Amino acid sequence: MTRLEVGPPHDHEVWIGRELAPPAPAGPVALLYDPEVEPLARRLADAVGPRLQLAVAGGEASKQLSVYERLLRALAGAALPRDAEVWAVGGGTVTDLAGFVAASYLRGVGWRAWPTTTLAVVDAAVGGKTGLNLPEGKNLVGAFHPPRGVYAELTALATLPRRVFREGLVEAFKHGLLTGDPVLLAPWDLEAERPGLEDYLARAVQVKIAVVERDFREGGERMKLNLGHTLAHALEAASGHALAHGYAVAWGLLFATLLGRELGGDDLSEPVEALLAWTEAPAPPAADWETLSGFLARDKKNRAAGLRWVVPYGLGDVRIEEVADGALKRAFEAWRGRAARYAG
Amino acid sequence: MTRLEVGPPHDHEVWIGRELAPPAPAGPVALLYDPEVEPLARRLADAVGPRLQLAVAGGEASKQLSVYERLLRALAGAALPRDAEVWAVGGGTVTDLAGFVAASYLRGVGWRAWPTTTLAVVDAAVGGKTGLNLPEGKNLVGAFHPPRGVYAELTALATLPRRVFREGLVEAFKHGLLTGDPVLLAPWDLEAERPGLEDYLARAVQVKIAVVERDFREGGERMKLNLGHTLAHALEAASGHALAHGYAVAWGLLFATLLGRELGGDDLSEPVEALLAWTEAPAPPAADWETLSGFLARDKKNRAAGLRWVVPYGLGDVRIEEVADGALKRAFEAWRGRAARYAG
Repeated sequence: MTRLEVGPPHDHEVWIGRELAPPAPAGPVALLYDPEVEPLARRLADAVGPRLQLAVAGGEASKQLSVYERLLRALAGAALPRDAEVWAVGGGTVTDLAGFVAASYLRGVGWRAWPTTTLAVVDAAVGGKTGLNLPEGKNLVGAFHPPRGVYAELTALATLPRRVFREGLVEAFKHGLLTGDPVLLAPWDLEAERPGLEDYLARAVQVKIAVVERDFREGGERMKLNLGHTLAHALEAASGHALAHGYAVAWGLLFATLLGRELGGDDLSEPVEALLAWTEAPAPPAADWETLSGFLARDKKNRAAGLRWVVPYGLGDVRIEEVADGALKRAFEAWRGRAARYAG
Repeated sequence: MTRLEVGPPHDHEVWIGRELAPPAPAGPVALLYDPEVEPLARRLADAVGPRLQLAVAGGEASKQLSVYERLLRALAGAALPRDAEVWAVGGGTVTDLAGFVAASYLRGVGWRAWPTTTLAVVDAAVGGKTGLNLPEGKNLVGAFHPPRGVYAELTALATLPRRVFREGLVEAFKHGLLTGDPVLLAPWDLEAERPGLEDYLARAVQVKIAVVERDFREGGERMKLNLGHTLAHALEAASGHALAHGYAVAWGLLFATLLGRELGGDDLSEPVEALLAWTEAPAPPAADWETLSGFLARDKKNRAAGLRWVVPYGLGDVRIEEVADGALKRAFEAWRGRAARYAG
């Protein structure tokens, strides 16, 4: 069992292990869970006796205002008080949604997260971001509202389909690029030694903790976590959100490393290609640069001032900067060539 | 012109005066305004050139999720960036709603409030509370999100119907009970000297600032602002929300003073009766104690642990405590007697 501490202003712990003991809640509990992980939800319910249990389907379709309204009204209908806690059990979509419910019910109650996908453990459940989608775009509504605790239950992760398990570790690999940690850059080594998963996840989560501690409000430091995400969001949009987030980020990371090379940095594309193969990433959508640029301009992160890129110049050497159109287009051509080879 | 400072963690100014100069926004502006105060909204629009202008009808009916969604989608549709500001022009319902839109759009953008009723100036626009109603109850959803500035424009207040103007000052009178300020306890003196309005409002707002500075998160100190509100919320609910908030609070203040007397404090009921007469408050609903108790138990503020009352023992001497049923019932009988006399 591993215990990580997230410092101010978050002030909570992240537990990683098998059959983690449920914490003592401050008040009555509303348990919001993805029915896909009902065994874990049932174990928590048996332990705590929640006032309310609500099933929430995993997936982006749940991150909308009508579902948010249903959950809020259920909490209000059960007269949950200010000292109530929301316990969220599921992937990142369920924890994002439940976190925003907690952030806004009675102007804010506490919450705890049991992320049940590798992606949610590494990415969604640390950092305090909660939120919803609008038809106009993803994550356009929400709040910064750190959970009181995060509990990465390895028994739940063990039940994930292999491809989902691997897809989620793209974000951990990204953390490896940010820091140069060779363990994070070789997730395939986990296959040989599954007991290594706890250590692997702890390393990945620790990178995110370090970044968000330095920059709660996404001023500068936190933007490094967007490595690979700028193109990824455009690829997701161009695919009509058929391309899963982890795969989109993997393709985005390949683009980022080719951009770094184009700008005079090291060539870091080789391990990313290995990652694409290991995750069995599907080919990206065949959109051209002009189409993707259109999506880039609409990304919420790009709305203030100019569009800035997170560029890896070497392992552990990532910079945030504006990039001239010519370099972007050359990197894109190189990326398109690799993608075509991969698809073929 | 009066300038008041609200200290950390709010950190904003409150301006009170005539034809206040609009501030310089940090980015593009979304102007959300009640069409009832269009002249002020138009003046602001002429000065700042908003990216977006949205009319929002005043009144509780606007504080619901469907209106919230309409506003969020309008902001997203106009691609308002992170550095955008929401400017809210209207009464407390409009500023509450607009503040929550600002609190949650892109996980929080800045906002400024132009409260256009006496009630909103004294109560709603200082303290950082924003929010919405659910069918299950008022203000059950929201966030603490202080505005960047509050601008009490006296020219807008001058256009209020007399009864609305007076009703809003019930909260200012309440601040007089909290501090013992004789000016706040005699709002009718304003009639003789309308130029005194700026000073009067400044005194009332300063009381709220002092309280919320000491207790941003409604731990203890801020609960004093609920003086008169416990019964008031039950009266509003018993009337099917036909009884306006100011009147309900005035009746709640009468109950609170009679409760203070019952518990051995000074008899402060006389100035409250004068307030009821001056505001031309309608008679409260004829509900009995059992009915009102039922509403009390459902009030969100009472949901944690036991129900505590804000009891005035003397001018400037207000205590928060649990009260035995016997004393509550005796105070209620006395209150019912006064109400019957007033209605007759």
